[in-house]
Amino acid sequence: MAFGWIDEQAEARRRAGLVRTLRPRPADSPLLDLASNDYLGLSRHPEVTEGAAEAARRWGGGSTGSRLVTGSTELHAALERALAAFCGFEAALVFSSGYAANLAAVTTLGPHGSLIVSDAGNHASLIDGCRLARGETQVVGHADPEAVRKALGTREGAAIVVSDTVFSVDGDRAPLADLAAACREYGAGLVVDDAHGLGVLGDGGRGAPYAAGLAGADDVVVTATLSKSLGSQGGVVLGPARVIDHLVNAARTFIFDTGLAPAAAGAALAALRLLEREPERAARAREVAAELHARLTAAGLEAVRPDAAVVSVRAPSPERAVRWAADCRSAGLAVGCFRPPSVPDGISRLRLTARADLSGAEIERAVRVIGETRP
Amino acid sequence: MAFGWIDEQAEARRRAGLVRTLRPRPADSPLLDLASNDYLGLSRHPEVTEGAAEAARRWGGGSTGSRLVTGSTELHAALERALAAFCGFEAALVFSSGYAANLAAVTTLGPHGSLIVSDAGNHASLIDGCRLARGETQVVGHADPEAVRKALGTREGAAIVVSDTVFSVDGDRAPLADLAAACREYGAGLVVDDAHGLGVLGDGGRGAPYAAGLAGADDVVVTATLSKSLGSQGGVVLGPARVIDHLVNAARTFIFDTGLAPAAAGAALAALRLLEREPERAARAREVAAELHARLTAAGLEAVRPDAAVVSVRAPSPERAVRWAADCRSAGLAVGCFRPPSVPDGISRLRLTARADLSGAEIERAVRVIGETRP
Repeated sequence: MAFGWIDEQAEARRRAGLVRTLRPRPADSPLLDLASNDYLGLSRHPEVTEGAAEAARRWGGGSTGSRLVTGSTELHAALERALAAFCGFEAALVFSSGYAANLAAVTTLGPHGSLIVSDAGNHASLIDGCRLARGETQVVGHADPEAVRKALGTREGAAIVVSDTVFSVDGDRAPLADLAAACREYGAGLVVDDAHGLGVLGDGGRGAPYAAGLAGADDVVVTATLSKSLGSQGGVVLGPARVIDHLVNAARTFIFDTGLAPAAAGAALAALRLLEREPERAARAREVAAELHARLTAAGLEAVRPDAAVVSVRAPSPERAVRWAADCRSAGLAVGCFRPPSVPDGISRLRLTARADLSGAEIERAVRVIGETRP
Repeated sequence: MAFGWIDEQAEARRRAGLVRTLRPRPADSPLLDLASNDYLGLSRHPEVTEGAAEAARRWGGGSTGSRLVTGSTELHAALERALAAFCGFEAALVFSSGYAANLAAVTTLGPHGSLIVSDAGNHASLIDGCRLARGETQVVGHADPEAVRKALGTREGAAIVVSDTVFSVDGDRAPLADLAAACREYGAGLVVDDAHGLGVLGDGGRGAPYAAGLAGADDVVVTATLSKSLGSQGGVVLGPARVIDHLVNAARTFIFDTGLAPAAAGAALAALRLLEREPERAARAREVAAELHARLTAAGLEAVRPDAAVVSVRAPSPERAVRWAADCRSAGLAVGCFRPPSVPDGISRLRLTARADLSGAEIERAVRVIGETRP
């Protein structure tokens, strides 16, 4: 029977305790949220939601077509100009998601005959980009510039190095300056995903590449999401104008996708304006992360020192990580739970996100609940 | 130099006259739009834009995380129930784009060891799904059930047949009933993309699978977009509950992507409610297409008889197709222009979309402009 094999896989998942289920939340959830990627707490900010509402009213519910046909509005162009200026790059191109942006960047910049050097801890969308790209991918050890050099030395010709700037699971930072130096030694391009850096790292949240002095470099391309610090939906690729022009002409997830909805563009643009006006939000997210880490450590928990706004807390086993997260939830606290097989390193952890708008009392409550429910 | 090869490609594109450029439109564009995929004219409908605005206000600018963490709201669940009920399937799952929905459906339903039979005219996102999937893909001739049978007969084991329901370039329909019969002979699943059928074909716009009597079948999975007839952004997969459960557990573009923005979900849900209340919109889109075809043919132009709401008009060469579309634009009419190398069949054409809300006078004007500017 068609799809009969699905039942066997479902049964295997059940036996392994690995069934994923959706838990739709109400608009007024009573849970304290340390699980979302709304790092600056802007998703519910009235200026951001009004930015979305106003854009929908003015431009419509959808963009109505491919960006190359009817899907480019002046709002998209304004957002792209603002993102490029904010992050310090020559040009920007927005996509319907960060996933689509990453597929676009890696497939178009890693063409047939080229080498793609990819960090073992990269996000699924970068990995899928490598798999779709016509170039040859070499996966190297996590955050290891020497391994990158070695890979780049294995062959001549065009090459890119692909990495997250802040890795989503443990929240650790990539050695960007070292990676850029390695790339320059070999004439390779550096393509980095700043999904978890934009809005959090760099002067006023300009991102990890900006903080590393790489903004505007002619051999650096940055991708990011509009759905985390900017509280909206979508993705962006930032880089030299000729790279962006190339994406317009060659990126399948740009050419054959409907353009980003006006409401998402409007929300992201409003969030960016807010961040420009209130640059302290970025530093505050980092402070909350540091405070969470310090308090968790003081409570005897094993937490990874945060490089950005993600705080990872070690759990003794996959089963106990799942139980721990569920117990937090029962006590009114939403936390993320990462465990094998969704993490390649075999480590189970709670994943906390340090929202810039968490109050001292909320941080205290979160740490108390995590401590009281520890396995 | 990193990315140096891009300049050569850009130069080759310039020489070939194949440079793509973005043309951001103003909110009050004076052009008569026969280029968008806003088939029912709902993108600007006040109920749809207010659905987007209200959702952003109530739920936030973004969904804040993966659908499996914080990105599922009760609004997403309501939209999924409504889409499943409308199209006649047991369950539905929405994605941030139709591209993401197609990648999810093909990669999860075409696993290692399986056979994927793919129509040569399929959309880029289905093709990328085949390339990402671990199964073995066999591409078969366009709309050819006998070729599908032959491919299915080449091997044992799990198999799916993948096809658009309405092909985006020429607007022709796939032989769905024949494809389903072929699948059943071999125990294969049928996975069809109804992006250009939903809202246009079937009773009240319930889609091509519904029209073909395939709604709710346990061996049929349908993908569609929320960005065409529903005037919003996003994609959906519809099918048996166990298939949808499998996607929740296994689809990388679902698990590792931020959930669809509330505004997009709200706009799509409002459009669906409107379509339920005003089912005649679907028939009207088909009538407009038939009228466009009849008038263009009467004017001596070579137009393909439309199966849905896309009307394709043959052009004598790529260069003259581009010039023709530009001349239409200068005369106040936006039309699509498809030509090699973006179309595999080597045929250049204008692509017109028959919006349900085009007036008789607008149809007349469109046909007059196309006739007057013909090469």
